[in-house]
Amino acid sequence: MILIGEKLNGSIPAMGRAIANRDEAYIRRIAQRQEAAGADYLDVCASVTEDIEVETLKWILDLVQEVSDVPICLDSPSPETIVKALPLCKKPGIVNSVSMEGNKIDIIFPVIADTKWGCVALLCDDKGIPNSVERRMEAFHGIMAKAKEYGIAPSRLYIDPLVVTLSTDETAFSMFAECARQIRAEYPDIHLTSGLSNISFGLPARKLINQAFMVLAMAAGMDSAIVDPTNRDMLGLVYAANALLEQDEMCLDFIQAFREGLIGPEPKKA
Amino acid sequence: MILIGEKLNGSIPAMGRAIANRDEAYIRRIAQRQEAAGADYLDVCASVTEDIEVETLKWILDLVQEVSDVPICLDSPSPETIVKALPLCKKPGIVNSVSMEGNKIDIIFPVIADTKWGCVALLCDDKGIPNSVERRMEAFHGIMAKAKEYGIAPSRLYIDPLVVTLSTDETAFSMFAECARQIRAEYPDIHLTSGLSNISFGLPARKLINQAFMVLAMAAGMDSAIVDPTNRDMLGLVYAANALLEQDEMCLDFIQAFREGLIGPEPKKA
Repeated sequence: MILIGEKLNGSIPAMGRAIANRDEAYIRRIAQRQEAAGADYLDVCASVTEDIEVETLKWILDLVQEVSDVPICLDSPSPETIVKALPLCKKPGIVNSVSMEGNKIDIIFPVIADTKWGCVALLCDDKGIPNSVERRMEAFHGIMAKAKEYGIAPSRLYIDPLVVTLSTDETAFSMFAECARQIRAEYPDIHLTSGLSNISFGLPARKLINQAFMVLAMAAGMDSAIVDPTNRDMLGLVYAANALLEQDEMCLDFIQAFREGLIGPEPKKA
Repeated sequence: MILIGEKLNGSIPAMGRAIANRDEAYIRRIAQRQEAAGADYLDVCASVTEDIEVETLKWILDLVQEVSDVPICLDSPSPETIVKALPLCKKPGIVNSVSMEGNKIDIIFPVIADTKWGCVALLCDDKGIPNSVERRMEAFHGIMAKAKEYGIAPSRLYIDPLVVTLSTDETAFSMFAECARQIRAEYPDIHLTSGLSNISFGLPARKLINQAFMVLAMAAGMDSAIVDPTNRDMLGLVYAANALLEQDEMCLDFIQAFREGLIGPEPKKA
């Protein structure tokens, strides 16, 4: 599983305050904690108005890259911001995100075409999140046609089939899973990812829904997720599901994560 | 999901001591707690030598049925003990278990044939747990032939495809899941169950493996499990997976279990 640490995101209230107050120590600490928990990428999203977005991203990126070598998942709703912020990243990471909405893909794909950057692609279009597997797969095929046009290999793409809110649509998971299975069958090397917390919106004990979703989505072929890697329970289930799904020979990764104190019961404080 | 409470089992050290010491209050308390947590059946296993097994079961069953109306899952390795203890149960429950091993099935099936008792059937034979899907399915078809002979409907059977230890066999889950899928496709009304804790034997943080197994097995068609219903984390994942797998319209069961305090963060002690 490829874990994209979600915590450097200004839409999380504590992080939003830290960004507004230019709290350097907080940014550095959250970056380091996610790296220690095994994040493969660090998502960085300023979540500020577009006029100050690039300068805010620069401030965050400089701090993060000062303390961590983990590549960046550069996250903005604005493709123009992404293009401007890309050169601020010291090594190739993942762009988050494109979709068939507007001209995002035609702005971003040419810029990353001849680089090693990956890209998250959401299966939505100008009309929002399609409410059928067929229409999401149409968005998928549209994205793949563009990827081919710009010479971006499937293995550089992180497809997010998208989830709606389970409490109002009981097919939220099964539609995600069916798209994931079809995509995996068509492109064995592609990545499948999810932001996942949408699924539990409006429900109590959201953590339980998010955890069960993670395990079920992994069984459907998801090999990446944008999550809080410092959430021990979630991380533990990821390692456990990985072993059960034959992705961890002899459970060696599971046992090592336990030995390193990343998963399992919280160590007693001295 | 049909939850069979596992805690009234003498092989659990604290319960074994309570049985040895004839601790009536402890037995009653464990029965009541499992009922309050929503157990659909209470497994009762004396785990003593066969010469005192029926009298021990009688003592436990009388105490349990004094405080709880939940039907019994009568659990013994001895088919003779099961036949003798069946009349001690006030209402039909589930026999745990038969298999293609020895003459178990020919002792138990005729006795329960014209009753409303269900029966757990394990996919093993005289040679132990078969190490291929094909051989487990042979055991399954042997069981179904016997069930037909005695007129026991598939809906009264709880098939346990069996799990081996994941740490020594990485196909432990996938073999279980493949059997479950084939059985479910052949008999839509049959029950699929598991004792599940075998899967994590020899590993650290076993709880994580058991939890992820539960969720993955539910996706493969398992609709019953022998578990500790008072384990809030496990119960929470069962309700969450149920909702994600379209078994809980509008998440009403999930929300109600949360409101009743059965799942979600532990309520703060007063």
